[in-house]
Amino acid sequence: MRNLCMVVSYDGTAYYGFQTQPDGNTVQDKLEEAIFKLTGEKVKITASGRTDAGVHARGQVFNFYTESAIPIQRWCLALNNRLPGDIVVLKAQEVSLEFHSRRSAKKKTYCYTINANRYPDVFHQHLQFHHPTKLNVEEMQKSLTYLIGEHDFTSFASKKSTKESHVRTIYEARLVHEVDQTSYLSDQLGVLKLYITGNGFLHNMVRIIVGTMLRIGQGKWRSEDMQRILVGKDRALAGPTAVAQGLMLWEVFYEDLS
Amino acid sequence: MRNLCMVVSYDGTAYYGFQTQPDGNTVQDKLEEAIFKLTGEKVKITASGRTDAGVHARGQVFNFYTESAIPIQRWCLALNNRLPGDIVVLKAQEVSLEFHSRRSAKKKTYCYTINANRYPDVFHQHLQFHHPTKLNVEEMQKSLTYLIGEHDFTSFASKKSTKESHVRTIYEARLVHEVDQTSYLSDQLGVLKLYITGNGFLHNMVRIIVGTMLRIGQGKWRSEDMQRILVGKDRALAGPTAVAQGLMLWEVFYEDLS
Repeated sequence: MRNLCMVVSYDGTAYYGFQTQPDGNTVQDKLEEAIFKLTGEKVKITASGRTDAGVHARGQVFNFYTESAIPIQRWCLALNNRLPGDIVVLKAQEVSLEFHSRRSAKKKTYCYTINANRYPDVFHQHLQFHHPTKLNVEEMQKSLTYLIGEHDFTSFASKKSTKESHVRTIYEARLVHEVDQTSYLSDQLGVLKLYITGNGFLHNMVRIIVGTMLRIGQGKWRSEDMQRILVGKDRALAGPTAVAQGLMLWEVFYEDLS
Repeated sequence: MRNLCMVVSYDGTAYYGFQTQPDGNTVQDKLEEAIFKLTGEKVKITASGRTDAGVHARGQVFNFYTESAIPIQRWCLALNNRLPGDIVVLKAQEVSLEFHSRRSAKKKTYCYTINANRYPDVFHQHLQFHHPTKLNVEEMQKSLTYLIGEHDFTSFASKKSTKESHVRTIYEARLVHEVDQTSYLSDQLGVLKLYITGNGFLHNMVRIIVGTMLRIGQGKWRSEDMQRILVGKDRALAGPTAVAQGLMLWEVFYEDLS
């Protein structure tokens, strides 16, 4: 028995999220089907966490147990040949039998993309939230500082969250202006990306943080309101849940994994 | 009567090219339909040139004559509201009645994107030619120097070309490594973009140049072979036509247009 750990990137546009659903058409289903086609084994893969419908992943991590003797360096290409084009396995390695993609994860980074130009970017529509009206980027950046550290993030969790504790630690939250090389118009705000790293994230947490940060950027709230909302521990205080398509699971970090 | 000039970007994936076809579903059809919905006028638009099926445009330019009195600053949003999401008008201005998008164009830049990483990029699949095997980038860059200047580009034109003269001037041809921010794996070659600027391009010219440059990068030919192929004035000497999806009309330049 081997425990294989893989990094996969996917465009979530066409899928009902990562995790298997009764109706099928999830990223997990496609991965398990590809493994079945390759090995004949019906495995259940374990991911670092689920992603919702329409959410993307640059580097999702999953592991599974197999009896297959296929050499580790053959797995990526062999699975990619059996996967749809919008799911690509980038890395495969054999890990100890104790390794568990979710429980062993130490940190995760998500990226949320806001296109703040006047018109949508036809080449990245499905990867961005288009917000054509004015935003105060400095206030948005300031608001993020209140999130750093260990806090109860109840205000930024879906009401459907069933987690016992809503305490999580955010290590970093950076809002960066990225050069928008395909954009024709240079007189505009450009593309903003929020990179947020924590030891774990509650359901919809990044998207609610973004929805709140956008209210601040729009001038409806001030940066200090982020603090007020955080200590209030009430979902109703925060902003709306930003659209799924802007969100990407960027990277998952482990202690003993190269 | 007003002559309106517009810049439009489009993702060509879903269309049979720019120019109207008997079967419809072209970018020109969609633009003319949107103008009709907005003004009630059945106009024929003139573009800087056609783009083939699957080819994209960051900044295609077109113009048309209209009796409409709609103020110029309203056109972009009004048309975008009547266009599919993969076609976006970025700029509109009123120009002299003599202005003609094709005949008045002085220079054009195309961009061709090669993903030279081991695995495809799920987020940009439809915008790149994926070439996973080794490439000698230096030789490719050297080969491009032979194209600069005024030459007969018969070797790099589709045999279907009906142009009287195949003489064109290439002002610049740069092959650049771009930072691949969404790529997970950093141990790979990355993304290569060819930016090529000339006073005009023959049918398939950029794609045949790319196909030839790739042969050189693969080590099948040497950089000097670009010169031999150019002076041979025979399409059969050059490499294959690279896939359409990697090509993007980047920018069109005019003398008197801001």
